[in-house]
Amino acid sequence: MPSRSIDERWMRLALALGARGLGRVWPNPSVGCVIVKDGIVLGRGWTQPTGRPHGEVVALAQAGVAARGATAYVTLEPCAHHGKTPPCSQALINAGIKRVVCATQDPDERVSGKGFQMLRDAGITVDIGCLKDQANAAHIGFFMRITNGRPMVTLKLANSIDGRIATRTGESRWISNAQSRAYVHMLRATHDGVMVGRGTSLADNPDLRVRTVGLGDRNPVRIVLDSNLKTPTDSRLSQTANDTPVWLCHGKNADTAAWADNAASLIKCNYAPQGLDLYDVLKQLGQRGLTRIFCEGGGTLAAALLRANLVDQLITFQAGVAIGGDGTASLASMGVEKLSDAPRFALQSMQNFDGDVMATWSRS
Amino acid sequence: MPSRSIDERWMRLALALGARGLGRVWPNPSVGCVIVKDGIVLGRGWTQPTGRPHGEVVALAQAGVAARGATAYVTLEPCAHHGKTPPCSQALINAGIKRVVCATQDPDERVSGKGFQMLRDAGITVDIGCLKDQANAAHIGFFMRITNGRPMVTLKLANSIDGRIATRTGESRWISNAQSRAYVHMLRATHDGVMVGRGTSLADNPDLRVRTVGLGDRNPVRIVLDSNLKTPTDSRLSQTANDTPVWLCHGKNADTAAWADNAASLIKCNYAPQGLDLYDVLKQLGQRGLTRIFCEGGGTLAAALLRANLVDQLITFQAGVAIGGDGTASLASMGVEKLSDAPRFALQSMQNFDGDVMATWSRS
Repeated sequence: MPSRSIDERWMRLALALGARGLGRVWPNPSVGCVIVKDGIVLGRGWTQPTGRPHGEVVALAQAGVAARGATAYVTLEPCAHHGKTPPCSQALINAGIKRVVCATQDPDERVSGKGFQMLRDAGITVDIGCLKDQANAAHIGFFMRITNGRPMVTLKLANSIDGRIATRTGESRWISNAQSRAYVHMLRATHDGVMVGRGTSLADNPDLRVRTVGLGDRNPVRIVLDSNLKTPTDSRLSQTANDTPVWLCHGKNADTAAWADNAASLIKCNYAPQGLDLYDVLKQLGQRGLTRIFCEGGGTLAAALLRANLVDQLITFQAGVAIGGDGTASLASMGVEKLSDAPRFALQSMQNFDGDVMATWSRS
Repeated sequence: MPSRSIDERWMRLALALGARGLGRVWPNPSVGCVIVKDGIVLGRGWTQPTGRPHGEVVALAQAGVAARGATAYVTLEPCAHHGKTPPCSQALINAGIKRVVCATQDPDERVSGKGFQMLRDAGITVDIGCLKDQANAAHIGFFMRITNGRPMVTLKLANSIDGRIATRTGESRWISNAQSRAYVHMLRATHDGVMVGRGTSLADNPDLRVRTVGLGDRNPVRIVLDSNLKTPTDSRLSQTANDTPVWLCHGKNADTAAWADNAASLIKCNYAPQGLDLYDVLKQLGQRGLTRIFCEGGGTLAAALLRANLVDQLITFQAGVAIGGDGTASLASMGVEKLSDAPRFALQSMQNFDGDVMATWSRS
């Protein structure tokens, strides 16, 4: 049996392959798979756009008859239920796979544990837990939708050294540099939906599609939280809703007449004391299949998400410029009185982005 | 002749040794020196507390007669003028040093180039410029005092993910973690003076000495910018001024009577439209010999220093907590309207400090 470090090496490859599908497979998880025999890679696969075929099936097809006696490294428990296609566990059995190394169990009750059981019943050795933490992080959107009924939320904050997003006169282009801004497009491409508040929609007339990074076919659903539907029907979002989905989350009392002929989808949500009920918004986005949401602001929505403890991952960009306290703050008021009540985040990684500090944080 | 990479290796050691003297040798530079022959280190030295003896003399004393024919690595041009002691250039000649590798030239006109000339006149090979940028950064305080007439200024900003230093109710202990706070004490120990504004002096009643890191004998001069001398005479600073210097920078019209019997030094400075004239304050601190100032805030002084373009180095600590726009900002208003007018800083290094992001920036 290969050593633990060799298992981890192949699982890292499987995780890297799985990451390729992020943002284009919802409501499915993006699973990576590597088929290995005698140290030779026979097949590499990941969940394909729209979710089919699964990564295991792609990898097995590459390996062909050579898969007999090989080990399969899979980032998530292979499915056991007959959906549109036969289950992956059956495909692994049929191919003659001898051992399956799997990072983590599928919380979907149609699968959970059943995939492993099916493999073991067929005499396959099953080892579970290799790089489990990394796999759980990779599949967090899928897991949260299954277990919490909502997509995971990534919040972006890009600001000056002192937490400002614009000068006192409103100048904001650009505080973060070109590499940071390109990475934001990568982040859009690896999420299912990109979300902004009404203020940003009105002030910036944003497009929210993926540019710059050569992934223009990977556009997420564009979501605006617009309780009174104030987004103009001649906005960039409205005008491009035919090409790339636009979902407008609004309150029950909003006047929807102007949007009757527009391709944008309207989602009726509950009100909260201020604006929309964010739990209801995210629940409805989850019901529509989204697993990963990237929130780009503005400061009012960002503060509301943080206050509601709905931010699972934070990506911060800190640029080497000082603007001062009369500039615009990255976050609106949160009403935090005690530090012990403030939402805390654990630093996951940090990088020098051509002079900007890019850091990734997860809810702690 | 040793290769460039070997020279750089020994010079890195000399720079590391030189760093040991930072904060305790003003108005002198802290120079590191290594004596090497046939790949063997014969002597290691750095400028001793109060500035004497110089690093070269310490290293030569260790090497003794073995220094004959050796190479000396020195982080700054050896002195050539007779001060309290004979010049280091003469000491290197007398010891029979064959080659001197020096990182950078001394801007002090009593030395500049004369040290190198004295060595060459004695038949010593002199190579200049090895790790010059690093050496210039190490000696920046000494250089700025010589060339600009003021000490270098390091500004610390320790804040939440969104640039806040306290909640709306003023709770601020603790936002940054224990490792970050210990590093602040290291920063105090490696500067000649630690400086705060009146607001911080009144609100926090700070001690400003070096604790936590086992360097309690390395206390910097404690400086308060207090135009009207509002710091109480029963404050911690006043009460400990006998043990560790306290310098109060005040305006010409301040009432100094209450301080007649206190050990704190009073420094009369020019007024600016708001508070004190920071150029005059720093000039006077430089005249008194300080080369490295560490400013710990508060937000009003920090913003004023930034606006006046007097911050040479920024140290930022970003803790993984979100406080929101109703918390206290790390910087007061700066009046920046155009981004192109905002002070910019270049990222020098970044580190994960047990979950806080610590970054070092220099004026760009």
